[in-house]
Order: sequence, then structure tokens, then C-alpha cells
Amino acid sequence: MALTLEQLNAADAATATDLLDGLYEHSPWIAAKALEQRPFKSMAHIKHAMAKVLAEASEQAKLDLIRAHPELAGKQMETKTLTAESTNEQTKAGLTNCTPEELEHIRKLNAEYGKRFGFPFILAVRGPRGLGLSKAEIIETFERRLHNHPDYEQAEALRNIHRIAEIRLNDKFGYEPTLGNEVWDWQERLAQHSDPGYAEKGQLTVTYLTDAHRACAQRISHWMRECGFDEVEIDAVGNVVGRYKAAPEYEAKGVKTLLTGSHYDTVRNGGKYDGRLGIFVPMACVQELHRQGKRLPFSIEVVGFSEEEGQRYKATFLGSGALVGDFKQEWLDQKDADGITLREAMQHAGLCIDDIPKLERDPAKYLGFIEVHIEQGPVLNELDIPLGIVTSINGSARYVCEMIGMASHAGTTPMNRRRDAAAGVAELALYIEKRAAQDGDSVATIGQLNVPSGSVNVVPGRCQFSLDLRAPTNEQRDAMIKDIMAELAAIAERRGLRYTTELSMKAAAAPSAPEWQKRWENAVSDLGVPLFRMPSGAGHDAMKLHEIMPQAMLFVRGLNAGISHNPLESSTSDDMQLSVDAFTHVLNQLAQEQQ
Amino acid sequence: MALTLEQLNAADAATATDLLDGLYEHSPWIAAKALEQRPFKSMAHIKHAMAKVLAEASEQAKLDLIRAHPELAGKQMETKTLTAESTNEQTKAGLTNCTPEELEHIRKLNAEYGKRFGFPFILAVRGPRGLGLSKAEIIETFERRLHNHPDYEQAEALRNIHRIAEIRLNDKFGYEPTLGNEVWDWQERLAQHSDPGYAEKGQLTVTYLTDAHRACAQRISHWMRECGFDEVEIDAVGNVVGRYKAAPEYEAKGVKTLLTGSHYDTVRNGGKYDGRLGIFVPMACVQELHRQGKRLPFSIEVVGFSEEEGQRYKATFLGSGALVGDFKQEWLDQKDADGITLREAMQHAGLCIDDIPKLERDPAKYLGFIEVHIEQGPVLNELDIPLGIVTSINGSARYVCEMIGMASHAGTTPMNRRRDAAAGVAELALYIEKRAAQDGDSVATIGQLNVPSGSVNVVPGRCQFSLDLRAPTNEQRDAMIKDIMAELAAIAERRGLRYTTELSMKAAAAPSAPEWQKRWENAVSDLGVPLFRMPSGAGHDAMKLHEIMPQAMLFVRGLNAGISHNPLESSTSDDMQLSVDAFTHVLNQLAQEQQ
Repeated sequence: MALTLEQLNAADAATATDLLDGLYEHSPWIAAKALEQRPFKSMAHIKHAMAKVLAEASEQAKLDLIRAHPELAGKQMETKTLTAESTNEQTKAGLTNCTPEELEHIRKLNAEYGKRFGFPFILAVRGPRGLGLSKAEIIETFERRLHNHPDYEQAEALRNIHRIAEIRLNDKFGYEPTLGNEVWDWQERLAQHSDPGYAEKGQLTVTYLTDAHRACAQRISHWMRECGFDEVEIDAVGNVVGRYKAAPEYEAKGVKTLLTGSHYDTVRNGGKYDGRLGIFVPMACVQELHRQGKRLPFSIEVVGFSEEEGQRYKATFLGSGALVGDFKQEWLDQKDADGITLREAMQHAGLCIDDIPKLERDPAKYLGFIEVHIEQGPVLNELDIPLGIVTSINGSARYVCEMIGMASHAGTTPMNRRRDAAAGVAELALYIEKRAAQDGDSVATIGQLNVPSGSVNVVPGRCQFSLDLRAPTNEQRDAMIKDIMAELAAIAERRGLRYTTELSMKAAAAPSAPEWQKRWENAVSDLGVPLFRMPSGAGHDAMKLHEIMPQAMLFVRGLNAGISHNPLESSTSDDMQLSVDAFTHVLNQLAQEQQ
Repeated sequence: MALTLEQLNAADAATATDLLDGLYEHSPWIAAKALEQRPFKSMAHIKHAMAKVLAEASEQAKLDLIRAHPELAGKQMETKTLTAESTNEQTKAGLTNCTPEELEHIRKLNAEYGKRFGFPFILAVRGPRGLGLSKAEIIETFERRLHNHPDYEQAEALRNIHRIAEIRLNDKFGYEPTLGNEVWDWQERLAQHSDPGYAEKGQLTVTYLTDAHRACAQRISHWMRECGFDEVEIDAVGNVVGRYKAAPEYEAKGVKTLLTGSHYDTVRNGGKYDGRLGIFVPMACVQELHRQGKRLPFSIEVVGFSEEEGQRYKATFLGSGALVGDFKQEWLDQKDADGITLREAMQHAGLCIDDIPKLERDPAKYLGFIEVHIEQGPVLNELDIPLGIVTSINGSARYVCEMIGMASHAGTTPMNRRRDAAAGVAELALYIEKRAAQDGDSVATIGQLNVPSGSVNVVPGRCQFSLDLRAPTNEQRDAMIKDIMAELAAIAERRGLRYTTELSMKAAAAPSAPEWQKRWENAVSDLGVPLFRMPSGAGHDAMKLHEIMPQAMLFVRGLNAGISHNPLESSTSDDMQLSVDAFTHVLNQLAQEQQ
């Protein structure tokens, strides 16, 4: 019989510990200590309480927990001495059904991994609805993680242990994250469309107005209709727009609309969740409203933005830009790598270019814009917190730079007579690290770094590098730029170098509207999830809407250290469910406010 | 009537100053002060005395001297207000005979240069025997130097002023560096042979056993015969070997032989002097001995080594290696970029591979090995010293390395959560600079540096780099390697990175034999040139001969900051003459010792 929250909250300590038995392998002390935080508001609350207990435990306790786990397809499986939970998991992943060759390969990996890290390889192999990783995916992950740094790999093992505990807890409660699963499935199915050259390799790439891109739009519009949206259309820039009308009595009064959504295009060889999560979460909410026959005192407009990543054309934010009137006619002459102009691509797709100006929204008709997005960073994952409140989308500036010294013979040029361009850049690299860290929430990156035609025996005469500088406010960003440029000048002066810098991009910061940020905070708190505020380091569609209406974003934790723009980008249906719950909570708050 | 040293040394101060009038433009004080150092041993002595006066003068005095010079083809030329010396120089360079377009171009360059540096562009335009730079070369140099760092460009202006003074001084003394000119001409003529793909672009590239390479060998052997060498042959690895026998009475007793020489192959797009100078300087000495009908109490063997640069095949030092028995049969299977094996190339050139082992020299038959080489570094040029005494050829080690962190989003990864591979390498780059400088005469270089597929908005997950570490002794080199590797490990540990290093080359140090170094020192001192000792940062053929006999090298100053492995590599026939004089001095010392 399934456990309930009420039951768990009411039980005495010993009983409660028994009820949570088996979540953490051979380690009941974790649940026991977490139970001291009762009453739990939600399952998310239990999960986080347990994660916190472990985070605060000693290093030895963490290592003991990791070591309490069996190897994948290891001796314990062979001798059938696994815990019931592990047996279930390893069986479902097909590990009890390996060929002798597969077993031999996994044994080798186990040995190598154990030698390198001193603990067994741990991977949460189950996914939503009992589905999970395939044997091939498991082996691939195993091989990849063998190369991690030991301290990173230890943290990765602990994160997988929490994910295993989460799935086991769901089992105990007979709980399925139904809407989270729905969102998960939409993403899986949409990821089947990929541009030529990538699709064949199993990679996901959907760039503006390719066949795969147009198929995605078609799919999303179809699903929107199935969800019960009243009006669904693909607009003049390829956005998929779904409208769910307000309750008739409000509709008659000329109500306002809540705008939400994110983009469905991807970077090359990207992840399944970047952008798309922000379309499917509100879709799941509307589907649920529709299923319940419920209408709100305001209408909801969910937009799948057609273009945000700037992969095919130089112009970017084509989708959300059109909604704020930012579409420049000269962009139509931009060419992709094959020489096809934006105009030709749009005509080929049957888009009515002349109608683009009509897409501009009148802010007076909107309540505001909210967007759910995968974090694309490591913070939430490391803190074991599923949702993050965005305080601001960082302002940014990018520069293309070159340091110029004098190439000379590495053997014959004494250290004090060098004009080493790369050493000058090295000095700057360490400075920008320190300078950004000093702000706490600024970031500064040299992502491109190259000594052109460098030789092992030549002191670098040139060094090319990029600068990417971001901060939550324009003032903070500009102060950092000023300091970094001053340091660059000082380094060049001191070392007898010269340099060039070219500003290639500058974007204003978009702080969240306080009342909208507050609504996300209320939602997250009520879900029993710890409140964590953070700036968004990446740009998002909300940045464009910010130009004409209030906006605020919600971040969802990404697995694998939050890696993004990469096929390793990952999330869980539990976290997706939580974001659906948070979004629903915001809808309810707005409904109450509008009444 | 030409001035003589005796005359100058005997004159009273006022007369002597008059005698040296016009050497430094509108600045007689330099000669006047240098004259206090009389008596002068040689013209080189006068030149260095004047250079020293200027080196010790105030910054303002230096700037005044530079500003006392006219612009090239400038207003003073137009209004005919140049000094007699400048008129002569600018006329010989063809600058008084410019087309209106050329004049306009030079005027623009003058304006731009003046604006950037605050003084006129100064270039010694005359070369040996009144020959000199062409208008095109002058304009090219002008354009290049416009990009120099101001403090470097000021030093470059002063160096050109010294060169101008040297040429003017030669005129006063009616002096021609005859043997220096001969060496200069051989180098010019040999530089006309270049490999296909380079010859067309006017670039010099002579790699092992190409048509151009074999033509060079043929030329050198021909010139050796003209010089009066008794035996000349091209040996089994393509070395050109010339023998000048001892005086008959000594020859009968079975005398020993002085071995000398350097290589005639070049790097791609290299300079005319690297290697070749060390063949032609002793050739000029033998030519002079032969002209005078003079034989010494020992024989002289001059070798033009066929291969030192390792450009066509991976194996290197093929020429000098063969003389010490270091030729490995497996090298014959190495392939060049076109898939031609070393064996095939040697057979094609008609070399008798089977005879290579016979090339090994018996050290008992040799006095030792000496080698003259262009410095390939900036030290002598900066100090205004024409010759340098090599104390040791540095021991070296090279590594190919990679730092591995974790690629992550530049916007979303907080500074304290990064594993930035490039930042780790930056830290190492600054450490190696400091560590090598601490020794005084060690050098350490990261010449290759690259973030593979780096993006402006991605924190570098990988950073590839090379390490080139050199020191005058093996012990000093190994201590530096140890410290650098320890720091690399510490940086990786601190930053959560991992790394790989692969040793790609390690060569032992070759300290000069004290008695041979002393002979070079005696020669240089007697020439009135200041004594300056320095390690050789680059490897040389002497390094191979070091394995079986005593050796010592003499360095000749290179112009253009000592740039080498580059078409800008340059020297003067005055400096070449000095090295012929120094070599002759060593021959004379040996002759006295052998009697």
C-alpha cells in the first residue's frame, strides 16, 4: 500500500524511519536525521531534507555511503546479494541480461574505475515511468565518467545516489510525476526531428526554418490543439502561438493575457530541454486546466519561439524579437552557410514576411511575461535544489581581441628580453578571474585562446583571444569592463606589447519585475522547495519581452553539472513536474489577484 | 686621403674630434667623448666606444640624436638642406630619384611614423661596397616598423644610427671589409637556391636533398675548390667537406686536424645566415691563407653539414650526426610529407648509404671543433656588441601538454564553480616565466597555446600547450623541469583539473671546452671588441661533435632584434669581417701552440 505524506508526518521517529527504509543503500541514518525536519510540505521537501543531511555530513560518511553501493553488474549481482531495490534497478536496466562480452567489458570498467576513484561507479539507471537508460547509454556514461576529476566524480556519485533515492521514494508513495512525464515525452518526441548531417549521427540540431524546424512547429501546434488551446497558429516568423481563453464572463470584459513560452530551435548538437521545456511546462498546465474544464480570469498565450540561438543567420532572437517590434528589414538579406538568404528561407517556408510588423504586441493587453528554462549552469545541481528564482538576466559584452608582441627564438631570447604575447594574455586571464569573482555574481571568460601558427620553439608574437563579460546590472558590467580594459592597457605597457579589441556584442541587463519574481518565490516556497535566487548568466527570450513588459523567469536544475548546448544536457521528470506545479501555483495566484 | 688608426690615436682632442666629424648626425659630442678612451686597438674598438657613450647618455640626449636626423626623402631632401653624408646615402639608395607616387607614399609613412613615435624614421640604407637596400626594401621595412612598440622602435632607431656611423667611419678610413664582403656575397648567391613553392615567392627554403639543396652542395664544393682547399668532396650524407692540408713538414709527421663548419640547409622561409655563416667564415680564412701561400702546422677540415634543421624528416642533425656515428638505420624508413622515404631521397641523390658508418671521425686525429654561428637572439644586438663567446649550448626538453577541465556555459557558470582549463594554463605560463627568470640564464616558453574549438561563450574545457625548457647545464634544466611539473600538478589539484604531458625531445647540455673558449676570448679581446660570454639557447652542430671532441662556438650579432628562422634575419659585412678576423686569430694561436 502506498505511503502518504500525512502518514509519514504523523508517525513516531522509529516508525517513520522504517517507512523510509531502503532509500539510501545500507544507510538508514540519512532518512532518520531528515525526519527531524518534519512536517514535510511535499515530497520535494523530503528529498531536499535528505540531500541536506548528506551535504552536512562528514567526508568519511559520504565516502562510506558511496562505498555501500554495489558495482553495476558486479559480484553482488552475480552472487545475488544485492538489496531488493538494487536488484530491481539493475534488472530493469537489462544488466542482469548481459552477454558474456558485455559483462567482461563492464567488469573491466568497474576495475579501472575502482582503481582510479576508490569507490564503485554509481548511476541512476531508471527514468520516468520505469523507463530508463539503455545498456549502451549506461556503458557510454561509464566510459565518459572515468575521465572526471576525482572530486568532481565523488560529487557526481552523490548526485546519482540522490536521484536513486528520489525514484525509490516515488515508488514508496506510489507517486508518478504525471505532468512531468508528459513534458518529458513531448521533449523526447520533438527531439526526433533533427537537421540533416546531425540526424544521421543521432545528434539534435534544429536551426531556423529547416525541414526539421518546420516539422517541430507542426508538432507543437498539433499538441497545443490536443491540449485544448482555443486558437493555435504559426505566425509570420514561425512562432507557434497557442491561446487559452479566459472564462467567458471575464473574456467579455476584455481581459488581459499572460504571455509565456520559450524557443524550440536548438544549437548544433544541442540538448533536448534548452528552450523547449519553457513551451511544454505551460502547455501541460493548460492541458490540465482544460481537462478540469477550468478557465481563469485572464487568458494565456503560450509561444514556441521559432528562433533564439542565432545558428543559421547572424540575426538572433527572431521569434521573441518580432513580438517587441524588433525585426529589421536588412536582416532579410543575411545569408546562411549555403548562401540562402533569410528572405528566401522564409518564402520557402510560406511565411508572410509583410505580416511581421503586425506581430508586435501591445503591452497594455498583457499582464506580463514569464518563462521557465533549464538553468544551463551547475549551481542548482550542486546545491541539490530543483528550482531557482531568476533575479535578473545578466547584461553582457563580448570582445574579439589580439595581443601583439614579438615572435622570437624560444632558446635564444632571454626571459627579460621577451615580448611574449601569450604571457600577456595569461596575465589578463588571471586578472579577469579575480575581478569577476570580486563582484560575486559577475562572470568573465576567455573562451577563445590561440597563438596563431604557434611553434614549440618560438616565443609567441601574437595571441588571439575573446572576452565575454556579464553582470546582473549594466552598471556592474560596465565597471568590470572598465577595470579589465585598464588592466589590459597596463599589462601591455608593462610588457611592451600592443593589442586590439573589438566589441562584437553588447546586451543590456534585464532585471526581473519584483512582483513577478515574488510570484515565483511564493510558488516555490509553497512547494516545500528551498528558495534560491540567482541571476541568469545566459540570454533568454524574456530579455526581449523585457523591452515592453514586466518579466520573470524560473530556472530548472540541469543534471550532469548543468551542462548545456550539449547532448549531455539532462533533467528529470520529477523536476519537470515541480516546474509544472510552480507554474500552476503562479496561475492560481494571478487568478486570485484578478478576481 | 684615408684616415689611419695611428693618426687618430696620436691627434690632440680637438683635431681627433674634427677627424671623426659627421659620424653621428649633428652630434659631434659622441665621438668627442669616445675619443677619451684612446688609444684604439681597432676600428671595431672605436665603434663600440661610441656606442657605449650613447648607451650611457640620458634619454633626452638619445631622443635629441634621433630627432637630429632628416626624414627619408623628406623636406630636407627637397630643400637640399641635408648633411653631405645624408645626401650621399639617400642618393645611393635611389631616394632622390622617386616617382611622384613613391614620394607621396613615403611622405604619408613619414607623417604616420612621426605621429606615432615623435621622431623621424631612421634606416641604414647602405650595405657592403656601397650597395644597399632597394627602394622597395626600404618601403617594406618602413611599413613593418610602423607597428613596433615605441620603446622598441626607439632602440631600433639608435641601432640604425650606429650602423650609419659605422659605414661613415669605414668611408673615412677608406676601409672595406673585404673578406666580410666575400662571405656576404657567398650567402647572397647561395640564397638564390630555394625549394619549389618558396622560390616563386622569393622565400628561402632549402630542405634535405631537394634539387635546391643539392645545388647548394654543388656550389659550396665549387667555391671551396676556388678557395684553394686541397680536397673537396660531398660525402655519403651530403656534407660538403673541404680539407686544407698542413704545411708539408707537418703533414709528413701525421698532424692533427682542426674541424669546423656549420649547416647549409634552412628552415622554411628562413634567413640567409643561419648555418651558412659558419661554413663561409672558415672558407674565407682558408682562401686568405691560400692567397698568401701559407700553410699551418695542422690541417683544416671545413664541413658544410647537409642537415641540421629537421624540416623534411623527423630525424635531425643528419650531417653532424654522421660524423659522430649517430645515424640510425631505422631513420631510412621515415617519410617526408610526400611519402618519400629518407632511403629513397638519398638513393635519388646518388648518396652511398652503405658508406655512412665510414663517416665517423676518430677523435684522436682531431684538435677539436669550432663553429661560428649567427646568434639567433637579441642580446648582442641590444648591447651593441658584434661577437659573443658561447659558454655552453643549453640542455633542453620539450613537452606536448594538455590541460583538461570541464567545458561549461560562460554565462551561467559562476567563477567559483569553473574548471577552466585555459585559466590553469595561464597560471602555469606566469609561473614558468618567473621560474626561468630566477635562474638568470634558463629559458622557458609556451610557444603553442590553443583552446580547441573554443567559443566566446564557453568556459574552456581543454587547453593544449607546449613547453620548451632550456638551461646551460643538465642539472639546472632538470631542477627547472622538476619545479615546473610540481607547479603544474599543484595548479591542477587546486583548480580541479587534470592534465597530460608528453616528453617530445630531450637534449643534453654541451658546455664549451675551456681551452677552446679561451682561444675565442683571446681573439675577440685582441680585436678590440668587448668580451661578452653567453649560453647558446639554440641547438647547433657543435652539440653533436661535443659527443666526441672538445668544442667551442663564436656568436655573431644578428640585426632586427636578432630575429632568426625568418627572412628578416640579418647581419652586416662588417660583423662578418670581424668573425673572419677572430677565426684567423684562433688559427694563429693554434699555429703558435703547435710549433
